Amino acid sequence: VSKYLFFDDYSEGAHPEILKAINEANAGQQRGYGGDEYCQLAAERIVAELGVSADIHFISGGTQANIVGMSALLRPHHGVIAVASAHIAQHEAGGIEATGHKIIAINSPDGKLTPELVDQGMATHYDEHTVKPRVVFVSQATELGTVYTRQELTTVVDHAHQKGLLVYLDGARLAEACAAMSPATTLADIAQTGVDILYIGGTKNGGLFGEAIAVINAGLREDFRYLMKQRGALMAKARVMGAQFARFFDEDRLWYQLGRVANDNARTLTDGLIAAGYEFVVPTETNQLFPRLPVQTVVRLEKEFGFYRWDSGREDPATIRLVCSWATSAEEIRRFVEATAREVVS
Amino acid sequence: VSKYLFFDDYSEGAHPEILKAINEANAGQQRGYGGDEYCQLAAERIVAELGVSADIHFISGGTQANIVGMSALLRPHHGVIAVASAHIAQHEAGGIEATGHKIIAINSPDGKLTPELVDQGMATHYDEHTVKPRVVFVSQATELGTVYTRQELTTVVDHAHQKGLLVYLDGARLAEACAAMSPATTLADIAQTGVDILYIGGTKNGGLFGEAIAVINAGLREDFRYLMKQRGALMAKARVMGAQFARFFDEDRLWYQLGRVANDNARTLTDGLIAAGYEFVVPTETNQLFPRLPVQTVVRLEKEFGFYRWDSGREDPATIRLVCSWATSAEEIRRFVEATAREVVS
Amino acid sequence: VSKYLFFDDYSEGAHPEILKAINEANAGQQRGYGGDEYCQLAAERIVAELGVSADIHFISGGTQANIVGMSALLRPHHGVIAVASAHIAQHEAGGIEATGHKIIAINSPDGKLTPELVDQGMATHYDEHTVKPRVVFVSQATELGTVYTRQELTTVVDHAHQKGLLVYLDGARLAEACAAMSPATTLADIAQTGVDILYIGGTKNGGLFGEAIAVINAGLREDFRYLMKQRGALMAKARVMGAQFARFFDEDRLWYQLGRVANDNARTLTDGLIAAGYEFVVPTETNQLFPRLPVQTVVRLEKEFGFYRWDSGREDPATIRLVCSWATSAEEIRRFVEATAREVVS
Amino acid sequence: VSKYLFFDDYSEGAHPEILKAINEANAGQQRGYGGDEYCQLAAERIVAELGVSADIHFISGGTQANIVGMSALLRPHHGVIAVASAHIAQHEAGGIEATGHKIIAINSPDGKLTPELVDQGMATHYDEHTVKPRVVFVSQATELGTVYTRQELTTVVDHAHQKGLLVYLDGARLAEACAAMSPATTLADIAQTGVDILYIGGTKNGGLFGEAIAVINAGLREDFRYLMKQRGALMAKARVMGAQFARFFDEDRLWYQLGRVANDNARTLTDGLIAAGYEFVVPTETNQLFPRLPVQTVVRLEKEFGFYRWDSGREDPATIRLVCSWATSAEEIRRFVEATAREVVS
Repeated sequence: VSKYLFFDDYSEGAHPEILKAINEANAGQQRGYGGDEYCQLAAERIVAELGVSADIHFISGGTQANIVGMSALLRPHHGVIAVASAHIAQHEAGGIEATGHKIIAINSPDGKLTPELVDQGMATHYDEHTVKPRVVFVSQATELGTVYTRQELTTVVDHAHQKGLLVYLDGARLAEACAAMSPATTLADIAQTGVDILYIGGTKNGGLFGEAIAVINAGLREDFRYLMKQRGALMAKARVMGAQFARFFDEDRLWYQLGRVANDNARTLTDGLIAAGYEFVVPTETNQLFPRLPVQTVVRLEKEFGFYRWDSGREDPATIRLVCSWATSAEEIRRFVEATAREVVS
Repeated sequence: VSKYLFFDDYSEGAHPEILKAINEANAGQQRGYGGDEYCQLAAERIVAELGVSADIHFISGGTQANIVGMSALLRPHHGVIAVASAHIAQHEAGGIEATGHKIIAINSPDGKLTPELVDQGMATHYDEHTVKPRVVFVSQATELGTVYTRQELTTVVDHAHQKGLLVYLDGARLAEACAAMSPATTLADIAQTGVDILYIGGTKNGGLFGEAIAVINAGLREDFRYLMKQRGALMAKARVMGAQFARFFDEDRLWYQLGRVANDNARTLTDGLIAAGYEFVVPTETNQLFPRLPVQTVVRLEKEFGFYRWDSGREDPATIRLVCSWATSAEEIRRFVEATAREVVS
Repeated sequence: VSKYLFFDDYSEGAHPEILKAINEANAGQQRGYGGDEYCQLAAERIVAELGVSADIHFISGGTQANIVGMSALLRPHHGVIAVASAHIAQHEAGGIEATGHKIIAINSPDGKLTPELVDQGMATHYDEHTVKPRVVFVSQATELGTVYTRQELTTVVDHAHQKGLLVYLDGARLAEACAAMSPATTLADIAQTGVDILYIGGTKNGGLFGEAIAVINAGLREDFRYLMKQRGALMAKARVMGAQFARFFDEDRLWYQLGRVANDNARTLTDGLIAAGYEFVVPTETNQLFPRLPVQTVVRLEKEFGFYRWDSGREDPATIRLVCSWATSAEEIRRFVEATAREVVS
Repeated sequence: VSKYLFFDDYSEGAHPEILKAINEANAGQQRGYGGDEYCQLAAERIVAELGVSADIHFISGGTQANIVGMSALLRPHHGVIAVASAHIAQHEAGGIEATGHKIIAINSPDGKLTPELVDQGMATHYDEHTVKPRVVFVSQATELGTVYTRQELTTVVDHAHQKGLLVYLDGARLAEACAAMSPATTLADIAQTGVDILYIGGTKNGGLFGEAIAVINAGLREDFRYLMKQRGALMAKARVMGAQFARFFDEDRLWYQLGRVANDNARTLTDGLIAAGYEFVVPTETNQLFPRLPVQTVVRLEKEFGFYRWDSGREDPATIRLVCSWATSAEEIRRFVEATAREVVS
């Protein structure tokens, strides 16, 4: 009997509409490496959605997007300011360092940077004996599922620019963030914050795979495709990514919808756990939940469900991470909550 | 009116059987990053096909496979011996150098290495002032469409091993090579030559994308997945590659079939051009052709067909490259030959 | 009028005996790149002093020694565990990251690692999504002037080895550490702790420049000179370093003497400041002092003496760093103490 | 009995005047890392000598200078056009590749680039699949001891600039080149050719060690010291290099003198060998000679003198390399010629 998985948002395949688009784009000849009609259409739709001029590139995954993006922004002595829990700092096996750059990691309880935290990163630099900060790396949503308000994000971007820094936005879960942000937020609003470069996540939002990098700052666009090729990130049959993103940003804006559904599923699961009496280490804002459960309960749940522990493994109650997606089963959410509840009454 | 493309073997989508396999694998939950049932099945089938113990990893493209493969084989001061026309030396935007390693490029008229050419590479090294050769990089088929015989390949591998070198085989077009090799050749035969690591090409042989790396040399297997992750080459929904390779090596061995069809198409086109009176700079052995045509003819053909010039652009007759695939239209082959023939009679 | 400098221990030239040795070694022909008689003699004396088999290499500075040393120990996905205040983490402009490796920085109030802190570094690793720790980097003396006892150092080394880690010792101020360690400690004692590789500092201990790397672990010796050359660290007229280290470890063991003198000078200065009523953020163990003085005093002292502030610049009292060396003037020490004392009485 | 060495121009110590300058600069306190009076004086004198605005930095050796220089000029996808015999291409253990960059090596019989050869390098680039040439690397004198005329050098620089390339000049033996160039040539003349960055060799011209990098192109100056530090090339007691270069460019312009003496010694040796009936594979222009001698003679000479074979070791007559310097003994030159002559008569 196989377990139901709340591990992450990429344990599902592609959304049916995305799969359909891939199938439709499969027939016939198209130029390779992004010179196809689908990538062109997708790029046009994304630029329209952003509402600003931008170069759009499609890359097969988030780590690769971050590696290529950083190499476009940094000279050899430059570093990246990021929160210590950032994906690039913790979960990319040193991919940024492998391209030669230090991540200046700043502790942040909620996974978000602030002007003060940026300044903390700046303070590690004084002269040529130290790494020179050049990029502020923000994730929206963060690794903790939290979300910058539009004001918070604008404030960080403005502060970074005032300090001579560029801003890179990791949007692996940007659809979920847009759905959670207040007031209602689109990619155009994100672009308006002034970020220099961002990627629009597909893999974790119902795509088969693929992220769309938008290079908004015109000064950073030159030769971007060389950097992609050099890191192995220029896909031969890129139409498969073009087709997905063209579908994401077709008239129904499927991309936003799937982010909302993922959040709604997480909300239902969160509310169930709250009703069952559990607490959360951070409030649920998007599609990731971090509840605290008795170790005894966790051990039992692990036999029926897949999810990660999110602490040292020695605390009781333990913190776990549950992730919902566009595909999460309402029935399994109900079953999970019930399973936890059993413990509380005993 | 769009042109018919002989540019390459990745201007088509996936083969219908491969697309079907992708669709079938889309439903339901699977563990990410290669921990799924499809990758496991594909790996088992490939190991069976190789007939030797090996670790199998799936990577989205050939340049990425080469980058990751090299980083598994080399210490910082090591270099790679390859022919000057090798993909890593000419067409990967310096991806190997970007990981810190020199390619010791040796001229070879037919794109193949020999013990003598390997020794030429070795002779560039004398002490710590020079790069130390560590890997011999062979492509089968080569960038010129030529193919090592089984004996030639074995001889190069044995020689490399005697000199203390490892052998990496770039198999972007290994299916076409297997179809062209004499005597009839399987992956098991390739493994028997003693190569330490190879990749089995999917993208250029009817896959949607993906290459399967086989690490045969047990001493090179440790931590390979770290190197993949670090270079952005660990795909979240890797099932999409597992499904393709499981299908390639299902009972009908579709992978070999598609290589044969590509070669047959190239043979038909070659024979037509020979009959029309044209010469070739290298004999056609696999799915790439390098005929010489009058510049006047080439200019006219470029209006109806897509293909690359393969010389400086100043010679007359000009050398062009035509690539066939599993999907090449027999009708378009006939049309192309006719179009060239017109010129000859005038 | 020029200020007297307590900035560091390299604002002086070479010790007269060292300068004499350089002069004596200047005449006549010698093979380049370390193939000279002086390097050979120095290596023999250092090996004798260590009391264990080792390969000895001479490198012009500490940052370079660390860069080359790390590249000998690490595969691309490996990281280095170090305290957050380590020289490689703070003051080498990202030199280690520029060779592709992450420094796993652990906070330590006294600049020393312990088994617990090493484990904290190990805990950042769980699988191929994270950097794999491979080296424990210790400084003796530390950046805070503190010193591992022989027992502490042995404990950390043993623990690292049990966890499958290698140990690299940065000995920029190892002479000062040896003079401060209890019981009386020699290089042989350091070698007995089991460190795999260390460098013996010359620049900060009366040399004109140069550090001697001792590769004790036989498994790490292969091709070390290639790594030196590749990083620009193989000096043509290496005799100039050989002569210095041959002199350092001549019969009078000048190297140890100079470390003791530096510590003694720091002791005198420390005692003076204590007597004047000042406190220290860490106890003075070697040749660096970290007293806290009123900002008003610091501002006045800066007009007469050179030294660094060692805090954010906003605290009062401020923490400053004073460094003594083999050459520090007793008169200037007295003058400095007096200058601070004036303030206290007012 | 030790052999007299014609191996190279760094088997001697420092010139007595240089050693004297080092001794004089040893006393007293100076700021570290190039903030000393000697580096400042040397920089002023070099700028005056160049006759153009430039940032001057001192680096301990040529390989290091090349590594740092390249990292100031290149983005990750950029490559360097150089002759195949260039020091960076053959004798630096892959140092440039270790910083991530491909050397586009062009064969040149005399070690010099021409506009045609630069174009040959440019022709390897067509789009993002190939490395983008960004720098033309010239050595003056070349590895073969040949010298660009002032017109040749200007022509290459102008051509490079027209093609959007920067020019880096490796001046390890620039003093010898200046002495050999026609018309009589100074550093000001070199600067007038328009090179963007160059290094002025000290190590091979009577220095104890050290090269002076002059960054002439103002657009390349920013943060150069960071790049030095990051590669371990910022020397703590840099005064030792400042003192040498201040002396080199003191009123008597010792630097030019020593280049002339080295060439004169090579001329004497060349004329002796010509008189003895030997031929040269390239004409002697500076301080390196490449005569061809019978293998029998070479074998005998190797017992009395140190020098390198400069061919595969299988030819007869063999090509050898002899290098003279400011310190070469007239008596040993006479003895060497005599020793070869004996053979001819027999």
